[in-house]
Amino acid sequence: MKIAILGYGVVGSGVAEVLKVNSASVAKKAGESIDVKYVSDLRDFPDEPYSFVKNFDTIESDPEVKVVVEAIGGETIAYDFAKRAILAGKHVVTPNKALIAAHGAELFALAEKHGVHLLFEASVGGGIPLIRPYCGALLTDEIQEIAGILNGTSNYILTQMHENGTSYADALKSAQKLGYAEADPTADVGGFDACRKLAILLSLATGKTVDYTNIETEGIENISAEDFAFAAENGYTLKHLATAKLTADGVQAIVAPFLVKIGHPLSTVRDVYNALWAKAKTTGNVMFYGSGAGKLPTASAVVSNLVDIAQNAHAPHTWTAESVRILPASGYEMKKMLRVYEG
Amino acid sequence: MKIAILGYGVVGSGVAEVLKVNSASVAKKAGESIDVKYVSDLRDFPDEPYSFVKNFDTIESDPEVKVVVEAIGGETIAYDFAKRAILAGKHVVTPNKALIAAHGAELFALAEKHGVHLLFEASVGGGIPLIRPYCGALLTDEIQEIAGILNGTSNYILTQMHENGTSYADALKSAQKLGYAEADPTADVGGFDACRKLAILLSLATGKTVDYTNIETEGIENISAEDFAFAAENGYTLKHLATAKLTADGVQAIVAPFLVKIGHPLSTVRDVYNALWAKAKTTGNVMFYGSGAGKLPTASAVVSNLVDIAQNAHAPHTWTAESVRILPASGYEMKKMLRVYEG
Repeated sequence: MKIAILGYGVVGSGVAEVLKVNSASVAKKAGESIDVKYVSDLRDFPDEPYSFVKNFDTIESDPEVKVVVEAIGGETIAYDFAKRAILAGKHVVTPNKALIAAHGAELFALAEKHGVHLLFEASVGGGIPLIRPYCGALLTDEIQEIAGILNGTSNYILTQMHENGTSYADALKSAQKLGYAEADPTADVGGFDACRKLAILLSLATGKTVDYTNIETEGIENISAEDFAFAAENGYTLKHLATAKLTADGVQAIVAPFLVKIGHPLSTVRDVYNALWAKAKTTGNVMFYGSGAGKLPTASAVVSNLVDIAQNAHAPHTWTAESVRILPASGYEMKKMLRVYEG
Repeated sequence: MKIAILGYGVVGSGVAEVLKVNSASVAKKAGESIDVKYVSDLRDFPDEPYSFVKNFDTIESDPEVKVVVEAIGGETIAYDFAKRAILAGKHVVTPNKALIAAHGAELFALAEKHGVHLLFEASVGGGIPLIRPYCGALLTDEIQEIAGILNGTSNYILTQMHENGTSYADALKSAQKLGYAEADPTADVGGFDACRKLAILLSLATGKTVDYTNIETEGIENISAEDFAFAAENGYTLKHLATAKLTADGVQAIVAPFLVKIGHPLSTVRDVYNALWAKAKTTGNVMFYGSGAGKLPTASAVVSNLVDIAQNAHAPHTWTAESVRILPASGYEMKKMLRVYEG
């Protein structure tokens, strides 16, 4: 199976690397080898062994390319190329939560019309095999509540504050130094990244579009060492949760810092790890835990979607353009203005 | 899609209940309703709304029955009926780890020959959606190590001992009173149940048969309050782990009590919950957590397999009759004769 990778940044080059490193196990699972026919990037990479093209036309018009991996990011060029790939009859795999949260319904409808898949395992929870079991097992059940630690940068900062008493500012600096946080960390520490991921999970659960701009979103910028001291005194830690209760009237969704009891599985999710905690009617409580970001874990999730396509063993994970009602989140006990997650 | 349920015990009646309770979401995901055409049990259930038969012949010869759910348990009648169902061209779904651990390779080969699936999501980890992501994502990677809390009864007993200082004997009595442990608890507390589950996970990872009788298995019967005191003093708790390292020469497998650091995600797995911790080369560490047993969680996992079959979105999870070499587990630091899990 021939594929093309759009964007040779962290994830794009990671996909090429994982396909190389794991080529034997991938070929065994997929039933055929998965080969990178083209890589598209505006930059030059003379030392890399792939066939680089600067123009999407070559990829679009090559019938041998069965799958396009969109690893450009953002919602503009990525949207344009994803659409063109689908129109050209190619499957699309993307780790791009912004693209899926903003244009999911439209792209899914287009993909269905053109008989191709649009898969996005890596868009939520990075390397955690999460979308597949969430959609496979939990959606035959009735999901009642979810609570995710979905942003590695924020979780790294809160872990530093909890374990070492580091101040928010110093923990942020350390995250930037390690490459976990960008120069402008707003999307991460402000909760906007986690909010888009929550919207994707809720769209999957409801089958309809969740407008992430309607979800109450509070970042971690105002958490202080005193908050952690208060939490510790009472047997809690602080975690930045993207959480929602699913009701017949809509979803009560919020992204905000929460007190989480020490000993709760979510309390052990340290550093850049992510986790999704879910409660379903008959399955009960489940948690999926793993690397929320990172080159190889994220790339591995993209590759698992490539294998899904090769195996043709993919169950459709989509939603419609119809909107879900987003209700204010309520029912959390307030302690010193801090919400307690009792899940 | 018409199905037949063999055995109307806890799991069998649970499957019927979950199909009823979740009928709307199941039909939505499966693309068609899933109906119980027959239930086979030697006992009479005059108040139940299903069509009971005492003889397997009726089910075997009815071409309308597409899937047989084997919920009898054990390795004798279950084996015979699973085989006959496959020979009759019917898919088989089972939560029966004893059957799969003992006869997996033979039954998979038979199923392939007859163009049907044999699915067993509920056989390991009960209600945790585990087999699917383990096979889907991790097997395109290279699994290096797994460590599971795979027996709810043992974990309940250890949780009581850790949290309340209960003696082993009293904790076992309490487990029996709550229905978690049987009158003869050997299979659970002796580690034999967890050992079969570990063999299934290793067979999936290697693609070959792991003979569970060759895996070193130590139960929890000799764990004392003093061991827990020692563990606590050093920042650990005790967990009964089914663990293995996968090497080029074979698998280093063992089922035994281990010291696990407080704060490690596995340390928060309480009571009858189960979890599987895995390390894979590119994906990194992942953990799947949820209800390891219980009527509805286990039945939900069975139902998710029924939906897989209806969607025809199932990737084959099988192994061959070829044997995997089982090596002694080594490399664990010994402290007061207790193994430390450093994962």
